[in-house]
Amino acid sequence: MPRNAQILLDNRPQGEATVDNFRLVTNDTPALQEGQVLVRHHYLSLDPYMRGRMNDSKSYAACQPLGQVMMGGTVGEVVESRHSAYAVGDKVVGMGGWQEWSVADGAAPGMLRKVDTRQIPLSYYLGAVGMPGVTAWYGLTQIIDPKPGQTLVVSAASGAVGSSFGALAKARGCRVVGIAGGPDKCRYVTGELGFDACIDHRAHGDLASMSQALKAACPDGIDGYFENVGGHILDAVLLRANAFARVALCGMIAGYDGQPLPLLNPALLLINRMKVEGFIVSEHMEVWPAALKELAGLVASGRLRPRESIAQGLAAAPQAFLDLLKGGNFGKQLVKLI
Amino acid sequence: MPRNAQILLDNRPQGEATVDNFRLVTNDTPALQEGQVLVRHHYLSLDPYMRGRMNDSKSYAACQPLGQVMMGGTVGEVVESRHSAYAVGDKVVGMGGWQEWSVADGAAPGMLRKVDTRQIPLSYYLGAVGMPGVTAWYGLTQIIDPKPGQTLVVSAASGAVGSSFGALAKARGCRVVGIAGGPDKCRYVTGELGFDACIDHRAHGDLASMSQALKAACPDGIDGYFENVGGHILDAVLLRANAFARVALCGMIAGYDGQPLPLLNPALLLINRMKVEGFIVSEHMEVWPAALKELAGLVASGRLRPRESIAQGLAAAPQAFLDLLKGGNFGKQLVKLI
Repeated sequence: MPRNAQILLDNRPQGEATVDNFRLVTNDTPALQEGQVLVRHHYLSLDPYMRGRMNDSKSYAACQPLGQVMMGGTVGEVVESRHSAYAVGDKVVGMGGWQEWSVADGAAPGMLRKVDTRQIPLSYYLGAVGMPGVTAWYGLTQIIDPKPGQTLVVSAASGAVGSSFGALAKARGCRVVGIAGGPDKCRYVTGELGFDACIDHRAHGDLASMSQALKAACPDGIDGYFENVGGHILDAVLLRANAFARVALCGMIAGYDGQPLPLLNPALLLINRMKVEGFIVSEHMEVWPAALKELAGLVASGRLRPRESIAQGLAAAPQAFLDLLKGGNFGKQLVKLI
Repeated sequence: MPRNAQILLDNRPQGEATVDNFRLVTNDTPALQEGQVLVRHHYLSLDPYMRGRMNDSKSYAACQPLGQVMMGGTVGEVVESRHSAYAVGDKVVGMGGWQEWSVADGAAPGMLRKVDTRQIPLSYYLGAVGMPGVTAWYGLTQIIDPKPGQTLVVSAASGAVGSSFGALAKARGCRVVGIAGGPDKCRYVTGELGFDACIDHRAHGDLASMSQALKAACPDGIDGYFENVGGHILDAVLLRANAFARVALCGMIAGYDGQPLPLLNPALLLINRMKVEGFIVSEHMEVWPAALKELAGLVASGRLRPRESIAQGLAAAPQAFLDLLKGGNFGKQLVKLI
């Protein structure tokens, strides 16, 4: 029975999250029941949505229970199987949580999925060819639904969702403008990811400045915005929005720690006849196959070249997660476990 | 040639609109050209959207030009016709503006429409069976798209749009909760219009109080909201919204006069996976025939009993309009011209 290091949520954040909210423990992995599969995790995914679940408030997902293993996506290898659909050596993606091993029910729909690593590296199934990529796909195709030639903006553009959004939007003939933190990320967004422009939000920290930067980068106005962060960027986008612009609300990290961040002028939604729609991609499992197929194709053809930030070892997960919330990552944030 | 009293926009409001923004003048009506029709107005419609057009800022419609007749909907009678589709004595609805007579191009699509006053009083074509009614129909059916049994809320519930919304929503098996100003309007909304409940916003002037009132009136939460006013009511609705709730943004009167009114916690749109959509009904002419047919049926069968506030004579229009913006009307605000 392998020993299994695990990270639990020990207590809830008071304002900003800290490493003291987490606790590292070690347990035996339980013996398999009939129908179960034992997975050794290779990578753990760290994602901004996890911060929302650490709060004990009404949120879109069940909140993370105290004293239990932090929930999260994982990729790994089947090392023991009592389910006929899985064999030892299969590579799988699942929701194994912040731990080195997990036991999964092989029959539960959506909990475990075999993946093909011949053309796609295993870790990408946590990023561009996984939940973040499908998130970008959903917001782009199901909410923004752009026409060729339209101008789209995405915040957190160098991250897993943002970079996928850019590739998907370029494939549809759109002008794509990213927003990212710092000149290195902006260079990556335009140089390697192929965005048409990128705005450094650190250089445009207030509404007037961001609005000017958007005006320069979007001479024909903004037709669609994919919101990953919240705060003054959305206010600025509304000032530059065209009639019938659409906003896909995916994340609003900026408000997770404390007081809600207001939207300054919601009347612009009426004036511009805009649509704003929030979504959670796990509630739309029916689109995943089509989305993953397109994303895998973009990666295989080199039109989507994701970047990864990799922390080493489970014990590094809490600090890597806190860094992610502050934009300290550069590309998809992972924890490598073996 | 009849003399024609007209009200022009003389200057733009600085903050709150006043009667001094308007000017009353008298002119001859011009001689008819081939294809034109001369209409004597019986009623002029006063609508909140007109306030937005008085500002010289970016808005959803072309702003009202200075020194020209205020734009607005009218019903009246054809008194002279040089277009084969119109005969003297025809009752028509059009956009004749704040004046006693107008000359209309009989061929211009959507400018003039003959109406049948055998079952529907002429003035209703400016209210429940006109633009306000279609506005309610569009927001309800094209944006909120409710299921039977869902709970819907509408502000300005005793007005032309709100009362139509209530009848249309009841016809679809929804629970409908109105918000109106003062006990008289609330009694009318529940007693005569058949809403399930009505909240007096004057008794619930802050977010906490309105949120409590909505909780009491909507024990199963809110699935759809039709926004006519803006301000703290929308904040309160978001606190009581169910997952996948929809908001149709039709008017935000509260912010017309000055500083924009913020939306306190837009992250709730994500948490509740909501959709918020602004619209202008004149951009969706394709739905008008179906909407008007349903609305006329509701009126004819007595399931929609609109109430009207009628000011007498064109000179009374500016003050009646300003009163409307403050909720001084009770039902559809009209000006009777003959």
